[in-house]
Amino acid sequence: MSELLATYLLTEPGADTEKKAEQIATGLTVGSWTDLPLLKQEQMQKHKGRVIKVEEIEGTPASGKQAVITIAYPEINFSQDIPALLTTVFGKLSLDGKIKLLDLHFSEAFKRTLPGPKFGVYGIRKLLGEFERPLLMSIFKGVIGRGLNDIKEQLRQQALGGVDLIKDDEIFFETGLAPFETRITEGKQILKETYEQTGHKTLYAVNLTGRTADLKDKARRAAELGADALLFNVFAYGLDVMQSLAEDREIQIPIMAHPAVSGAFTSSPDYGFSHALLLGKLNRYCGADFSLFPSPYGSVALPREDALAIHEECVREDAFNQTFAVPSAGIHPGMVPLLMRDFGIDHIINAGGGVHGHPNGAQGGGKAFRAVIDAVLEAQPIDEKVKQCKDLKLALDKWGKVEEE
Amino acid sequence: MSELLATYLLTEPGADTEKKAEQIATGLTVGSWTDLPLLKQEQMQKHKGRVIKVEEIEGTPASGKQAVITIAYPEINFSQDIPALLTTVFGKLSLDGKIKLLDLHFSEAFKRTLPGPKFGVYGIRKLLGEFERPLLMSIFKGVIGRGLNDIKEQLRQQALGGVDLIKDDEIFFETGLAPFETRITEGKQILKETYEQTGHKTLYAVNLTGRTADLKDKARRAAELGADALLFNVFAYGLDVMQSLAEDREIQIPIMAHPAVSGAFTSSPDYGFSHALLLGKLNRYCGADFSLFPSPYGSVALPREDALAIHEECVREDAFNQTFAVPSAGIHPGMVPLLMRDFGIDHIINAGGGVHGHPNGAQGGGKAFRAVIDAVLEAQPIDEKVKQCKDLKLALDKWGKVEEE
Repeated sequence: MSELLATYLLTEPGADTEKKAEQIATGLTVGSWTDLPLLKQEQMQKHKGRVIKVEEIEGTPASGKQAVITIAYPEINFSQDIPALLTTVFGKLSLDGKIKLLDLHFSEAFKRTLPGPKFGVYGIRKLLGEFERPLLMSIFKGVIGRGLNDIKEQLRQQALGGVDLIKDDEIFFETGLAPFETRITEGKQILKETYEQTGHKTLYAVNLTGRTADLKDKARRAAELGADALLFNVFAYGLDVMQSLAEDREIQIPIMAHPAVSGAFTSSPDYGFSHALLLGKLNRYCGADFSLFPSPYGSVALPREDALAIHEECVREDAFNQTFAVPSAGIHPGMVPLLMRDFGIDHIINAGGGVHGHPNGAQGGGKAFRAVIDAVLEAQPIDEKVKQCKDLKLALDKWGKVEEE
Repeated sequence: MSELLATYLLTEPGADTEKKAEQIATGLTVGSWTDLPLLKQEQMQKHKGRVIKVEEIEGTPASGKQAVITIAYPEINFSQDIPALLTTVFGKLSLDGKIKLLDLHFSEAFKRTLPGPKFGVYGIRKLLGEFERPLLMSIFKGVIGRGLNDIKEQLRQQALGGVDLIKDDEIFFETGLAPFETRITEGKQILKETYEQTGHKTLYAVNLTGRTADLKDKARRAAELGADALLFNVFAYGLDVMQSLAEDREIQIPIMAHPAVSGAFTSSPDYGFSHALLLGKLNRYCGADFSLFPSPYGSVALPREDALAIHEECVREDAFNQTFAVPSAGIHPGMVPLLMRDFGIDHIINAGGGVHGHPNGAQGGGKAFRAVIDAVLEAQPIDEKVKQCKDLKLALDKWGKVEEE
């Protein structure tokens, strides 16, 4: 019989954690147990949750003893969809004191109902023809209130710097100045021109926004128009909505999951979801080809172990394609050695200010990043590389080099 | 020019809260400001966020100084939908240290795009013909693994006790044992029979579950079949999904918003959303006719001020119908005087164990609740009422009377 395993952290477990775990296992499945007549117990056995593990761990000095518990929920109890799953394992329970959902372990049967990334790391590398280095992405800057010409010129400058991907700002919506469909078609034209000029291919991820009910049609239209990828604020909508986009055969373009709003569900040490589960595993299972999250170094920082855990969930051996991890925020060229040490080859280096703020503009920024990536790959000392790439020198002069601890 | 005002709590505001507030107002709108040439500043003025208020407040002794800040976001910057709104005011910002979204103030223009409750407090009272007392609701118990006959018998017993509403358990999904459409049609038949027997009308809220993309059709079908109301785990889906259901003219039945999963977004004092905003204001604006939330007294408790703040958002003077507040969990007849003191006439008394656990079963439980409600309304001493209602005496003997503080 298939079970879904949910692992929770209790930062104030109370006196009897075993009892608490048993109450959860029973309360969220068959409701009551010891009151039931024996015959009824036999009938209900296959619906009853089971306590798999109760482990006491050391908390912080302030918190004292904490507990990690794992409960198995029979999958026969709920329909195989993410809203049903979340309601079952973290519905009422999310309201029940200090409890954080750390991880979920899906049965193979449940996994078969989920799409995973359509493209994933390898599929995206195939689109770009780049297999042996981290990819480089840049973000539009200050786009609110700008018209189409500004947007197009920004796109061109970024592409000319040699970035592999360019993404819309996640707060760029349909306001009439540079509509979604126009951005796709005009953006495509710009990137065709820069490709003809440089021979380097760049993909543009356009922000899929609007009402939930309209997203599928809008995404299909984007695919028809030849959009390269869709940026998607999945946590402003819902994982199930992203899953539907990923499942749709008419939307044959990668989905880039943005972490907007997710801080509300992941930041607390006591409540909500672990970063690895939400931004790693669930994003991957529900079809994110890319998962953006705060890097451990930048301006909006995530603890290093959390960022690494997200990455691990994105790429670990599993039934699904791998998700491209995109540690973001505050990234500049001087951080690249650290990023590549921590996240290896299969991740995306993503910069906004670190590209646009370059003394030679976005072109210079892109070139500086590409140069330092090459240096690390070739094990060439950065101090040597700056002699060959003036843009790298300018970048390091401006932002410095982040030393590995 | 229309603006959306967002108020945040910063529990670790840092040294310069004014500067932090200005960074948010600029960073989440035009991106940069002081770098812009004067002409550009003039062009961009209408897109720039404004700091409305920065207030230092006393935190807890442990936290020290805290700050409450209000930022005005020009509505011209985003499309008028909840995902765009959340991404704008709490997208990246939700990931930026200790910050909690306390409240949103919508322009009248934005409000006109939102549905509010189709029925609301008055509409639901009209459906029931009950205008002068709190309504009484009960919940199915231990339904997982039970077949249709069990469900039907539970429904009958609850209705015979005189409850006004009966709701599905939120973890009751489509598993083949008692399908959605069958529950509606067979449930309707039972409630017709009990109405003929007692003359008391009872509504049944059936759990609307499944994939997001299928919900509208399923809800329309429910309405066609004559369903009384829809229970909906809105936070396992998204507020925008509920808004679509509320907007649909073919779904002329009330929506009961369940708080499942919401604890992940509201429980932390430092992160996420305030209870009043999410379970009160946003539920109401997006079309919840009922909003369930943990009561301040029960087994899964919410601080009293939070529960009262949700209720206040449900009923305060506004452009929308009022939402029926449903403080839930651990409610028994002995709590009714306290509930009516705190939430007045226009709320719903909702019980599971407090109905089913009655020595005379669900019928006895319902009768005990109805009797104590009448006693409070008529200012009759409870000790007198028990002489007229044996079921109330049995209930108070079992659960006791909760004294008002």
